[in-house]
Amino acid sequence: MPVGTRATVKTLSPAQLAEAGSQIILCNTYHLYLRPGAELIRRLGGIHRFMNWERPVLTDSGGFQVMSLQGLRKITAEGVHFQSHIDGSYHFFTPEKVMAIQNDIGADIIMSFDECPPYPSSREYLAESLRTTLDWASRGKIAHRCPEKQALFGIVQGGIHEDLREESARVLMEMEFPGYAIGGLAVGESKEELLRITSFLDGILPEKKPRYLMGVGTPQDLLDNVANGIDMFDCVMPTRNARKGTIFTSQGKMVIKSVRYIEDESPLDPECDCYTCRNFSRAYIRHLFSVDEILAMSLASLHSLHFYHELMKNLRQAIAEDRFAEFHQRMLDKLSAQEDGQ
Amino acid sequence: MPVGTRATVKTLSPAQLAEAGSQIILCNTYHLYLRPGAELIRRLGGIHRFMNWERPVLTDSGGFQVMSLQGLRKITAEGVHFQSHIDGSYHFFTPEKVMAIQNDIGADIIMSFDECPPYPSSREYLAESLRTTLDWASRGKIAHRCPEKQALFGIVQGGIHEDLREESARVLMEMEFPGYAIGGLAVGESKEELLRITSFLDGILPEKKPRYLMGVGTPQDLLDNVANGIDMFDCVMPTRNARKGTIFTSQGKMVIKSVRYIEDESPLDPECDCYTCRNFSRAYIRHLFSVDEILAMSLASLHSLHFYHELMKNLRQAIAEDRFAEFHQRMLDKLSAQEDGQ
Repeated sequence: MPVGTRATVKTLSPAQLAEAGSQIILCNTYHLYLRPGAELIRRLGGIHRFMNWERPVLTDSGGFQVMSLQGLRKITAEGVHFQSHIDGSYHFFTPEKVMAIQNDIGADIIMSFDECPPYPSSREYLAESLRTTLDWASRGKIAHRCPEKQALFGIVQGGIHEDLREESARVLMEMEFPGYAIGGLAVGESKEELLRITSFLDGILPEKKPRYLMGVGTPQDLLDNVANGIDMFDCVMPTRNARKGTIFTSQGKMVIKSVRYIEDESPLDPECDCYTCRNFSRAYIRHLFSVDEILAMSLASLHSLHFYHELMKNLRQAIAEDRFAEFHQRMLDKLSAQEDGQ
Repeated sequence: MPVGTRATVKTLSPAQLAEAGSQIILCNTYHLYLRPGAELIRRLGGIHRFMNWERPVLTDSGGFQVMSLQGLRKITAEGVHFQSHIDGSYHFFTPEKVMAIQNDIGADIIMSFDECPPYPSSREYLAESLRTTLDWASRGKIAHRCPEKQALFGIVQGGIHEDLREESARVLMEMEFPGYAIGGLAVGESKEELLRITSFLDGILPEKKPRYLMGVGTPQDLLDNVANGIDMFDCVMPTRNARKGTIFTSQGKMVIKSVRYIEDESPLDPECDCYTCRNFSRAYIRHLFSVDEILAMSLASLHSLHFYHELMKNLRQAIAEDRFAEFHQRMLDKLSAQEDGQ
């Protein structure tokens, strides 16, 4: 899922997003709550109509953003008091409030309000925090106004401790959510620890419901975690990196501002058939970046999203044809070989 | 002609430009000469291929930009010494050099190198400058490598003095250019003075060759100067204003950031059928501007260009149907009434 923080995936129109192959996007509850406000979005017909995006939308719970407001927030059993990063105004998020906001925004998939502890946190802190998060999940589920229209996912927490993760998953599974997210990873722990947790949860979470690993990641991360049973991801990486001139391609990452591309007439990715690669040379895109033109960011974003979507499409097909392990290995070889090469 | 300074009309892809209805765009010789360099563009197949724009392109001569480098340039009879605004490096533009650069860039229409005197300038300065500009026009015409492929226009100068304008036009007409531009206007003189000069030149310039008024203007300026026989215009106004949130519409100018539009579900311009107006509300575009999202600038630019192109299209049709005067008056009433109203 591309990230469309404030009801727009940065630099791209909905038509360009569809051209890139996006099927579902993520919007941030915290940001939309502050501007333009969830009630305004509701009065304007909901997020799809507001931003003219007919395909599915997922909103996060705002938990991650609110927890990131170091010094501007205070967590209690009831909820989180915080100050807006924009104007310092005071706000209070409870599980019920967050559910009302997400009901107003109107995404197809919405998330339970959770505490996302920083890394590293002590085991004691994580255990305490988990109890709060599970209580909030229950309260949110009760407060959810339209479960028939919006699928509410529970979020598994517990840091890098398998027993806490198991406790979290089992309690949420008893509550019966239509899907389960794994939160609190990709926050600073090693890649091995992350994969150990997703592998561990692969044996616990129900097979027939979607599993969503939040905030991940690189193409390799996607491959490795799909191997661990993950179905859904979101990450700013393809678009944020693209805006800074780092492009994901079938031959690894490319720093397009490099002088080596100054006269290069080939497309960003010779294997790609996106609008950018069909129509523009590396030399042109490098020029646009070197003179800080906005078109550089949108052409690069469109390509990098298309690359991610193609990766996932090919991966789904490999699974359907029962050749995922071979596909996984071949893609890893290809991506890593070129990262060295460049 | 939308302005695509560095081989891109800011924030828009060529596909979006075509969607807006652009038939020809202007690129700036001075900027392209500095970055990425004219020879590089030539080696990459010329400006059309470089930026993936198949329709016509016009390049200016760089004269206006170079003259604007106050303190960084020195004018002689031979040419203009100047320092780059980017890195202070030293450069020398002569009529021959500017022609070679424009030949390398490869636009369909190219311009003579001219001195564009500031406003106000003394009559003596203007007369002296005019002699230099006419000499440069002659030298550029001789140096032009491929007149069969690129149409070189002469530029009429002479400030607000009719006798100087007439001298300029007559000397250029003797040289027989395929088209004539009017430069040195819209630099600070009153609107009445500008219209007096274009009206005066209407009686002198040949009817059957295109007349191009450089750097103009508002919708009203276009209407008034077409009435004076002008055929072509370029201006950053539709795109630059759009990027700052001032939108041209059939009901006058709109400052979309205004709080009055916070919950307005209508399109920017109810009479418009561009991509932006077909798909997005004022409320959404206002939101995008208020949170500084780039999509705001591209949606607004696309609309404002479409508005300009539609105005010119309707105006051409009115001329063809011999009802230009009526069209002119009706449009002026409409645009000015609403500017008061808002």
